[in-house]
Amino acid sequence: AHILVLPGDGIGPEVTAAAVEVLQCVAQRFGHEFQFDEQLIGGAAIDATGTPLPDATLHAAQHADAVLLGAVGGPKWSDPNAKVRPEQGLLAIRKALGLYSNLRPVKPHAATLGASPIKPHLLQGVDVMVVRELTGGIYFGEKTRSATDASDLCRYSVVEIERVVRHAATLARSRSGKLTSVDKANVLETSRLWRDVTSRVVREEFPDVTLEHQLVDSMAMHLLARPREYDVIVTENMFGDILTDEASMLAGSLGLLPSASLGDGKVGIYEPIHGSAPDIAGKGIANPYATILSAALLLRHSLGLEAEAQCVETSVAEALEAGVFTADLATQGHAVSTHTATAAVL
Amino acid sequence: AHILVLPGDGIGPEVTAAAVEVLQCVAQRFGHEFQFDEQLIGGAAIDATGTPLPDATLHAAQHADAVLLGAVGGPKWSDPNAKVRPEQGLLAIRKALGLYSNLRPVKPHAATLGASPIKPHLLQGVDVMVVRELTGGIYFGEKTRSATDASDLCRYSVVEIERVVRHAATLARSRSGKLTSVDKANVLETSRLWRDVTSRVVREEFPDVTLEHQLVDSMAMHLLARPREYDVIVTENMFGDILTDEASMLAGSLGLLPSASLGDGKVGIYEPIHGSAPDIAGKGIANPYATILSAALLLRHSLGLEAEAQCVETSVAEALEAGVFTADLATQGHAVSTHTATAAVL
Ligand SMILES: CC(C)[C@H](C(=O)O)[C@@H](O)C(=O)O
Ligand SMILES: CC(C)[C@H](C(=O)O)[C@@H](O)C(=O)O
Repeated sequence: AHILVLPGDGIGPEVTAAAVEVLQCVAQRFGHEFQFDEQLIGGAAIDATGTPLPDATLHAAQHADAVLLGAVGGPKWSDPNAKVRPEQGLLAIRKALGLYSNLRPVKPHAATLGASPIKPHLLQGVDVMVVRELTGGIYFGEKTRSATDASDLCRYSVVEIERVVRHAATLARSRSGKLTSVDKANVLETSRLWRDVTSRVVREEFPDVTLEHQLVDSMAMHLLARPREYDVIVTENMFGDILTDEASMLAGSLGLLPSASLGDGKVGIYEPIHGSAPDIAGKGIANPYATILSAALLLRHSLGLEAEAQCVETSVAEALEAGVFTADLATQGHAVSTHTATAAVL
Repeated sequence: AHILVLPGDGIGPEVTAAAVEVLQCVAQRFGHEFQFDEQLIGGAAIDATGTPLPDATLHAAQHADAVLLGAVGGPKWSDPNAKVRPEQGLLAIRKALGLYSNLRPVKPHAATLGASPIKPHLLQGVDVMVVRELTGGIYFGEKTRSATDASDLCRYSVVEIERVVRHAATLARSRSGKLTSVDKANVLETSRLWRDVTSRVVREEFPDVTLEHQLVDSMAMHLLARPREYDVIVTENMFGDILTDEASMLAGSLGLLPSASLGDGKVGIYEPIHGSAPDIAGKGIANPYATILSAALLLRHSLGLEAEAQCVETSVAEALEAGVFTADLATQGHAVSTHTATAAVL
């Protein structure tokens, strides 16, 4: 299998290197052949080529079986009014590859409950899968800017909603059969369409799935007050961005959360949900677990290697249970390096 | 002073009645004369007049010194595709009165930390004031709907941003001098304008205020991980809706959180941030504290009666310290009625 690695900026190169080591180990133990290619994205690509998503990168991604991505952005390119920004590379590659469904599983490990701001008894048994629509909505609508005002258009088509809801409902079916759809249907027209389409798709195609609708503001509360009650949550792009960062606090650290961005093809992008953490870049102390767990999702979703994926996930769980904590997780005591954490998984 | 009471739906009538009792008590003890008028809004107004904001209600509001509001909505009117919906009344009255600045203070009481999903040690000393822009953004932009898609336009003008930022910066100056502005400037054009205008207004007019920018997704995390670090937070309409419901979990219950919606005039709308809770309506068990605390904000902001406002706030704090908990707050033991909680404050 051909795996494209896009290290990106900040701690991106360190955490993708760790995940590649783990993938190489998997290849060896299970007798697979993985070929790794590397390309530029984000700020690193702007510096080298002037654009955050060079043609060579997009071309390589289109011909790869899967893409492993680090993170993009940093103070060097952070002027929001700059013409080119690292984030554009990320948005453009998601869109160009048609990766409309972004999976963000949140399953707190017993060993890291101490790092969460939430009371531990609320977290026992939490296992939430957020499915965020990733290529539509206000992120990609027409934008205007004048001396006196600015606008962003949020648009959703029936087709865009149907396909991500089908994906989420299929996942719900393979789990507890419960799906929660989040919108703001009491105010937004796109949310009313979202609610109508979701209701119809689930009623007609997934009669065995139980669907519940939640308003995004209530959801922001319920996610904290009763996280155990949710299983698969499906929502539009912007709400998904906010709710998954909020949900990451259930797991204690952003540094533990992987993601998979999928479409109708086989290629997917696998990346930690954390950012490029420029303040700790190059120090060898970044938490590699989220990227390693993203590599596990890559094995599962793009390569169809379920046993291999579970092997990686179990190894990370064991490293956490053994107390191998990077600085973001170590509420007290000794924090280990990226290298030591990776070695524990290997 | 003329106070217009808009009970609305669900538990609205019960909690506004409690707050009116408290205001009457304040009038008597401090020698003021408050006149109370009552009008319809929301579902109750739809049932009686066919519209969620009758002319008589708007007229009365325009001529009142302040408006005390309960809550609107309920299953009876909850079809999101209905032509008239209770929420429209709320959005329309905010807009018609020009109430662009919505204050939502979050200050957990020591006595109710048990009701919060957040670990108590993180909550000590938390005192956050969220200023939510209330009459602009995607809530009020043009909407379209066709058989194949739907759209909502998010628009902000320089003037809309300036006035709410001035209000928030003035508040920050009277508190710790720290202001956090929340946007999604790495993706949205309206957010880039928001960031530019906020930076300029604070730099030019509030050089003594320290301004920090946060992306809305990061803010959704930081609010939980380090709530103590924030003082005044200013943000646009939709982000404010989501973040304040999330922030309410710091206080343990939505039932404790008041709000004030202010504009350039004297009249303001004061309402609890909770909804109409149709499941417990009419049972006499609703938590009246949020509405009573909203009455305190009414005394402070519309009537300029600071000592009276503090007296009400202290009385609520004492009731909480004495363990007078309604069902939403009573994690164990006895839950009291709306009447008993109100009596404790009186
Ligand atoms: C970097 C940014 C554009 C991106 C997003 O908002 O989608 C990030 O926050 C994420 O969630 O992957
Ligand atoms: C009822 C709804 C329209 C309203 C809003 O979103 O503004 C409510 O959630 C609030 O926060 O006051």
